[in-house]
Amino acid sequence: MPITVVGSIAFDAVKTPFGERERMLGGAAVHFALAASFFQEVRVVGPVGEDFGEAELDVLRRRGVDVSDVERIPGGKTFFWRGEYGWDLNSRDTLDTQLGVFEGFQPKLSQRSRSSEVLFLANIQPDLQREVRAQLPDARFVALDSMNLWIDIARDSLLSAIASVDCVILNDAELRQLTGKPNLLTAARELLSLGDGSPQPGGRARGPRVIVAKQGEYGEALITGESFFALPAYPLETVIDPTGAGDSFAGGLLGYIAAHPSEKLSDELLRGAMAHATALASFNVEEFGTERVERLTAAEIAARVEELRAITQFSGAPVELRD
Amino acid sequence: MPITVVGSIAFDAVKTPFGERERMLGGAAVHFALAASFFQEVRVVGPVGEDFGEAELDVLRRRGVDVSDVERIPGGKTFFWRGEYGWDLNSRDTLDTQLGVFEGFQPKLSQRSRSSEVLFLANIQPDLQREVRAQLPDARFVALDSMNLWIDIARDSLLSAIASVDCVILNDAELRQLTGKPNLLTAARELLSLGDGSPQPGGRARGPRVIVAKQGEYGEALITGESFFALPAYPLETVIDPTGAGDSFAGGLLGYIAAHPSEKLSDELLRGAMAHATALASFNVEEFGTERVERLTAAEIAARVEELRAITQFSGAPVELRD
Repeated sequence: MPITVVGSIAFDAVKTPFGERERMLGGAAVHFALAASFFQEVRVVGPVGEDFGEAELDVLRRRGVDVSDVERIPGGKTFFWRGEYGWDLNSRDTLDTQLGVFEGFQPKLSQRSRSSEVLFLANIQPDLQREVRAQLPDARFVALDSMNLWIDIARDSLLSAIASVDCVILNDAELRQLTGKPNLLTAARELLSLGDGSPQPGGRARGPRVIVAKQGEYGEALITGESFFALPAYPLETVIDPTGAGDSFAGGLLGYIAAHPSEKLSDELLRGAMAHATALASFNVEEFGTERVERLTAAEIAARVEELRAITQFSGAPVELRD
Repeated sequence: MPITVVGSIAFDAVKTPFGERERMLGGAAVHFALAASFFQEVRVVGPVGEDFGEAELDVLRRRGVDVSDVERIPGGKTFFWRGEYGWDLNSRDTLDTQLGVFEGFQPKLSQRSRSSEVLFLANIQPDLQREVRAQLPDARFVALDSMNLWIDIARDSLLSAIASVDCVILNDAELRQLTGKPNLLTAARELLSLGDGSPQPGGRARGPRVIVAKQGEYGEALITGESFFALPAYPLETVIDPTGAGDSFAGGLLGYIAAHPSEKLSDELLRGAMAHATALASFNVEEFGTERVERLTAAEIAARVEELRAITQFSGAPVELRD
């Protein structure tokens, strides 16, 4: 099933303890699309300025990404973000944000983008997320990401957007902030209860069924109404640039699900998706921006998923315990 | 193989968002001993004051713990700690510490305590840890815990202590602080290289072979020279009191290893130990102090280890990736 993603396409300036880049291709939709492109065709919807060139589009095209809904705004400037990471890469300061063409962005989806059965609403204003979501009423799997800014200034709108999707992917701190619940399970269950009960095409009630808590260097947890799953991040001795890791993760997650069109959204499917998502995110952070994922191969992804399995399995031979 | 633990025996006053206790049994050696007692006989070495009664000792005795090396200091007061946890339980403030008999503590190990083949050096002054370690030259597995205080004021001494043990169990923030390395793998490898090369009874070089990074609510990672393993914390909707979780974890870890006396320190053994350690820690935090572990059963531990396996396994059916 093809995948549509709506979100930012950007130029990033990033400084980490390991180097810096003054201007590189970035943005949530870009990182997502590159990761998801290993699984299915991806259609990108987002605005760019006149400063966005064919070379940048070619990065996406080379991975088979459909860029026909990338809208070039005459006279506009592409979204620009400048950030710097702290010594342990767990903190980052935003030094500059120039919205450019992203200000006043009104997503225009072609018939082709609207026909996708899987949709990712990357981190944009929640009302826009709802508008886009409404344009794909028959999508079989819709996920969204968000950020602390929208929790601060558009919480109700974000909750409405969440009630309209199948899957919420947030940092665990954002989950806590959004729900006011410090406990991960309690917070996730609050979001799982947000459905409005209205029937959807598949016959099920609308509302999120899957919550993914991103935990940075610690990994990710997945909570559904029935089960819990957690996976550590793939251990890397050298992390160069975490920018886009969350969107690469989402790309792996939705890509894997889209690649199994005839399967029910089972625990097994979701866990396989989590493993592939974790693998994609781990490659993303190995180099700046899209550098590593651009030359990633399918064999490398498959090998890393196997390594993830190897570092998480235990047999735990039973031991005679003393009561 | 019996286990000896040297560390604090305490009264704790704890306040969490879910309640408080004015005075309850605590201390690293106590939490460790109760957890390890499910696997092997435990011998506790530590000082208490005249205010420490038979009722407290009975908590240990009921679990078969040997308390004959618990030294009651005439006229002394038992170590006392008062702390308060923040809303998400990830931060805590120490409001009062009264060392009491712990000040000037000189561990005296009976022949029996010195004959254990497994030793846990709970968080005490690193020079004392080295002294105790030297009294069990033939121990087959020795682990230590420590804290930021000793990294601040006795770093060299702590590094010497670390070089004399097989296994280091630290919070990941402490690992970073101790090594100055923000990356977990790099930090762990630095500690793994600390051996002084002098031969030990088993023929191997002295120095840590196993590093365990405790990651609080996220779980734990295990790093050896050859491999990496990570396990999430057991997901709990209600965490009442995290005090002693790390020591319960250590008790489960060393207990499991001690319960496999004839096995090599293989990856499989260590991973089984991590799973049991994680289970023990999860019970510890379900209630205040030792309340939950005091009435824990072997069947509950075994069931939780199985649950840990269930929440970490994935099959990840291979998917045809697009190169």
